Amino acid sequence: MDDNLSWFLYGPRDAKLQSLPVPEIKDPNDVIIKIAYVGVCGSDVHFWQHGGINKKVNPENPLVLGHEASGIIHAIGTGVTSVQVGDKVAIEPGFPCRRCKFCKSGTYNLCGNMKFAAVPPDTHGTLTKYYCAPEDFVYKIPDEIGLMEAVLMEPLSVAVHSVRLAEIAPEQTVVITGSGTVGVLCGLVATVFGAERVIMVDISREKLSFAGEFLDHETFLIKQDESIEESSARLLSTMGIADAADAVIEASGAEGPVQMGIYVLKPGGSYVQTGVGKPKAHIPILALSQKELRVRGCFRYGPGDYELALKLLGRPGIHLSSLVSSITPFEDAPQAWERTGRGEGVKNLIQVMQD
Amino acid sequence: MDDNLSWFLYGPRDAKLQSLPVPEIKDPNDVIIKIAYVGVCGSDVHFWQHGGINKKVNPENPLVLGHEASGIIHAIGTGVTSVQVGDKVAIEPGFPCRRCKFCKSGTYNLCGNMKFAAVPPDTHGTLTKYYCAPEDFVYKIPDEIGLMEAVLMEPLSVAVHSVRLAEIAPEQTVVITGSGTVGVLCGLVATVFGAERVIMVDISREKLSFAGEFLDHETFLIKQDESIEESSARLLSTMGIADAADAVIEASGAEGPVQMGIYVLKPGGSYVQTGVGKPKAHIPILALSQKELRVRGCFRYGPGDYELALKLLGRPGIHLSSLVSSITPFEDAPQAWERTGRGEGVKNLIQVMQD
Amino acid sequence: MDDNLSWFLYGPRDAKLQSLPVPEIKDPNDVIIKIAYVGVCGSDVHFWQHGGINKKVNPENPLVLGHEASGIIHAIGTGVTSVQVGDKVAIEPGFPCRRCKFCKSGTYNLCGNMKFAAVPPDTHGTLTKYYCAPEDFVYKIPDEIGLMEAVLMEPLSVAVHSVRLAEIAPEQTVVITGSGTVGVLCGLVATVFGAERVIMVDISREKLSFAGEFLDHETFLIKQDESIEESSARLLSTMGIADAADAVIEASGAEGPVQMGIYVLKPGGSYVQTGVGKPKAHIPILALSQKELRVRGCFRYGPGDYELALKLLGRPGIHLSSLVSSITPFEDAPQAWERTGRGEGVKNLIQVMQD
Amino acid sequence: MDDNLSWFLYGPRDAKLQSLPVPEIKDPNDVIIKIAYVGVCGSDVHFWQHGGINKKVNPENPLVLGHEASGIIHAIGTGVTSVQVGDKVAIEPGFPCRRCKFCKSGTYNLCGNMKFAAVPPDTHGTLTKYYCAPEDFVYKIPDEIGLMEAVLMEPLSVAVHSVRLAEIAPEQTVVITGSGTVGVLCGLVATVFGAERVIMVDISREKLSFAGEFLDHETFLIKQDESIEESSARLLSTMGIADAADAVIEASGAEGPVQMGIYVLKPGGSYVQTGVGKPKAHIPILALSQKELRVRGCFRYGPGDYELALKLLGRPGIHLSSLVSSITPFEDAPQAWERTGRGEGVKNLIQVMQD
Repeated sequence: MDDNLSWFLYGPRDAKLQSLPVPEIKDPNDVIIKIAYVGVCGSDVHFWQHGGINKKVNPENPLVLGHEASGIIHAIGTGVTSVQVGDKVAIEPGFPCRRCKFCKSGTYNLCGNMKFAAVPPDTHGTLTKYYCAPEDFVYKIPDEIGLMEAVLMEPLSVAVHSVRLAEIAPEQTVVITGSGTVGVLCGLVATVFGAERVIMVDISREKLSFAGEFLDHETFLIKQDESIEESSARLLSTMGIADAADAVIEASGAEGPVQMGIYVLKPGGSYVQTGVGKPKAHIPILALSQKELRVRGCFRYGPGDYELALKLLGRPGIHLSSLVSSITPFEDAPQAWERTGRGEGVKNLIQVMQD
Repeated sequence: MDDNLSWFLYGPRDAKLQSLPVPEIKDPNDVIIKIAYVGVCGSDVHFWQHGGINKKVNPENPLVLGHEASGIIHAIGTGVTSVQVGDKVAIEPGFPCRRCKFCKSGTYNLCGNMKFAAVPPDTHGTLTKYYCAPEDFVYKIPDEIGLMEAVLMEPLSVAVHSVRLAEIAPEQTVVITGSGTVGVLCGLVATVFGAERVIMVDISREKLSFAGEFLDHETFLIKQDESIEESSARLLSTMGIADAADAVIEASGAEGPVQMGIYVLKPGGSYVQTGVGKPKAHIPILALSQKELRVRGCFRYGPGDYELALKLLGRPGIHLSSLVSSITPFEDAPQAWERTGRGEGVKNLIQVMQD
Repeated sequence: MDDNLSWFLYGPRDAKLQSLPVPEIKDPNDVIIKIAYVGVCGSDVHFWQHGGINKKVNPENPLVLGHEASGIIHAIGTGVTSVQVGDKVAIEPGFPCRRCKFCKSGTYNLCGNMKFAAVPPDTHGTLTKYYCAPEDFVYKIPDEIGLMEAVLMEPLSVAVHSVRLAEIAPEQTVVITGSGTVGVLCGLVATVFGAERVIMVDISREKLSFAGEFLDHETFLIKQDESIEESSARLLSTMGIADAADAVIEASGAEGPVQMGIYVLKPGGSYVQTGVGKPKAHIPILALSQKELRVRGCFRYGPGDYELALKLLGRPGIHLSSLVSSITPFEDAPQAWERTGRGEGVKNLIQVMQD
Repeated sequence: MDDNLSWFLYGPRDAKLQSLPVPEIKDPNDVIIKIAYVGVCGSDVHFWQHGGINKKVNPENPLVLGHEASGIIHAIGTGVTSVQVGDKVAIEPGFPCRRCKFCKSGTYNLCGNMKFAAVPPDTHGTLTKYYCAPEDFVYKIPDEIGLMEAVLMEPLSVAVHSVRLAEIAPEQTVVITGSGTVGVLCGLVATVFGAERVIMVDISREKLSFAGEFLDHETFLIKQDESIEESSARLLSTMGIADAADAVIEASGAEGPVQMGIYVLKPGGSYVQTGVGKPKAHIPILALSQKELRVRGCFRYGPGDYELALKLLGRPGIHLSSLVSSITPFEDAPQAWERTGRGEGVKNLIQVMQD
């Protein structure tokens, strides 16, 4: 095994490529993955720009970044049965304790002892040459899926989790606010769950244009020169009053779209907060109450989400490779963060393993 | 039948006692109730002070107020089987269309064609001598329950609806913010559903004192000189960190308690917005999302709520008469609105029928 | 309006074409439909052969048969807004009381006062020239759907109800035992709900052959010379042991398939009993218990089922006309019952209205 | 540590007291418990009489029996934080794999790799001096609860699991068929969940007499000289026709009570199969289907069940010690199996640890 080079973040815009000890298999159910590609998401950019989100990186204790990753099985523990050396895999990058009441009751994403990639102070991420994971958190991908596309299993699992929480059912009308990677994947998954209409909403014409092409979805532009109430009324009239939304997935984290989601739902409708933004937002709580909306927080992914994402990845007609906008060599990783920070591309990847 | 005197609201602080046509039975399943008592709630006060809430009363088309009511069956249609003339009843004061998809799918409280007492422009309320209702919206009360206590069936049904939406289960820890009539009744119902701890929260020492006595609940005072974050942290430390709330019922409508509710819930916990306040509130949406909270709007009462409230009313050990603070004669009804507007008493009644 | 000729059943194989009083609109929300086609289902055959199922027809009080029907709006009440004279409609042939707790809580199919077409002693069916229904139980069909195809809305709604109760979700493996009209429609709807594999099971090669062609489903033949345990083991090995069924819809009513359904489900799997057969069946209750199966009875259709069926009918790629096997003129209706009784065809229709 | 004497079963009525290797802590989260009492349940008797249930004991590979147990913490692993040496505990006697999809999705009781006490071929039970368990499967009992009473945590958890699956809610009418230990504990838990009426059913006057005293429940005797249809009709008339059962928990495993459960439920009612009997039973499947019953298999206990049972054990007014009928010394264990096999007593214990 060669040196385990990894990208350590020391603070805002201060990252270094250094060696991490090569991981060893301690549990018979663990595997070592040789990382192939790592995706860049908004939180990576936030770490790069600000040194962390809630918890900041400590320069005395730098942190390896990255949590969207694919790779090839490099070694397996003696108890491993589900994958073999050489298998192409996607990695679910958070390992729960398996013992607390959240883990045991089917909500391991809420585990208080979760070891999630690239979370300060000391759980290193996947932007590394070799990464260790329990076998049940790696997923063998089909032969016909490439290692680049496999990176998208992470945001696809976020979308699966969101759509499940929204309880989307056949023939429903679904509004998705925010048309970035997670938003368009929510649109894709909503269609798989049978949604009749999926309306993608954004303030960016470019994003909507991509979303509209990606899956032939309807799109709706929030105009900067109208109030969110006006935008919402315009969207409602587009849908037809009797056909207000059955479900909204908020995938932007911004306050305006949060409000719009509440306004365009029908009584009894379902709202899921997937996007991450400022800690507080002004929301139309009286409307929420009087329409008896069902609002769910949404945090990462839980039992069965990666499994379902894996099955979707293999469906005929589903091609995620068009979401990949750029590939940056491992040694130039900060360029990928900068690029994503400038809003360029849909999903930018970092190539860790040489072809 | 004597004259059908009724209290009509013409505008802010402008109400007159006038005759409404005596109701007639048009549907064989209708009944006429001779109203005994009408309760005053916050929305009545708001109508009295402001002439309406969202929709205002039109002075050209004055509206009979009142929606919490008990009475005695005065006449029944030819198809009525569940009550007889002379029966003491509580009235569920909103009659849905029975035909729309909300009505047919078990959510008649969301019916867009609801005829709810004292809602402008033209659905008159219960502060009247004689009132017509379908038989399935009147509930015969047990012999041992008085007509004054029966008025409390309305807020008790709001509490039943709230606790059901909160999915409260045995041995849970429940926080109720707002200790008015609905709040303390939510506390009562939560106990029936098996809650281990019920913590009543308010900014008023008087209300907490009453709540603590009413059902031996724990109480928590929000102090005016600390931030809501500080109050929340103090409440959490009172509960024990591992024992954050399983469920919160927000029964005040004020912004601070809304925020506190989000802060003190455990991951996956359940929050129900029952209180009515300003249209918008600033809420900690990031915490809501990252704890994957389940938030439900709550509007009035629906299928089975009055039925369950009726059974609770007859339970040994449940005595709601201590909630009744004052009784105002029919002809002095505005005094009851004024009294309630000054924050005096828990539940103030208006006596419509002479003994 | 011409004479309201109707097919009255007097007893086993004793039916007469006689005039029923022409229906009148009594409720402003009622409509009169000129019946176009009536479908024949197994229960019609049972009535024809035995004079009823649980309740028998009384020869002194003969009953008009038929409950699957399409037609054209002939007249509307003054309050009707959703359809107009001349509209093509499918009819939901059971009218609940709208007042009982089943109706109000979203389960009107369980209403004890249901008026369902062709149920003894005195609720006449749809095999009649003119039929009266409340407007919210008729469904305007899209222009491109014919009146013959519209008859299939009834069994399609049974299938929608079944699949909903089975809680079928994307990528699941679903086994449907019984490949008659309802079975194949369950297969169709399961696919709409995202099922990855749908395996149609029957003892008839012909039915399986049709089912396999209708929607490209997998099929499995129960062999007469093996025990149901052997058949079940064979089906399980076909599925792959780790991939036992997530859901079973039993659409035959026969004992063997009931047992097979229990055997082939995975732990925690979902079983729905849609098929109607003998009152009792021998079932593997220990397996049911130890696998913690979720078993649901399934009775007709309830809130939203016809609505969803209507949307499916209009989906591109869904063509139900291939299910129609024969058309019998109104005056020869008993021939359609005989034909169906001999097991000929998938869905045999009776043409009531001349072109 | 003294010798680890244990009761090994070699075959029907062939058991020997022999030494098992003293358990060692291998996982830092494991604890060693010095067993105090072991309860005898029907399955123990079946093992004693027949050498096993589905899987038989192999005489070449004898099995330590017992799965209901209390004890005192004897040693703890380095990672243990929830209990200390000397703590009194109840033991949840089945350890799931924590890695399969059943474990991760909140149904660890359905884990295919479960290590459950006294299940052939090689998972030894609790009728032993020292027993090893993960810390999260031992439960520290309150000071005021004795080690004898703590044994009842096992059947109490079965009851909690059953009542949860039955979704029992306040003011419901609940029928429990089978009035042994699990049946009466289901009655107790149903009351905690708010049930208004709990009717205990059995064919034994003695058991009903005990059940009626234990918690002041109603009782109903199935008479030997009437059909189960007659018994069911008699029970229904006792309840009042409009008040058929909301929920049935079948805790006998016998065919007659299974049928009765289906007969006495109201439409949409909930049935849980907790009792274990013959592999197959004749059930009224047409009634199940037409009433759209919700039937759930029930297997042991899962997430949160022991936790809730523990809280109930500490509730004022709940005293389970009256269920303990006899105490047999460790060296005479087979006498306890014989006694239970003769139907003597409610819960017979074996005392493993000397006072």
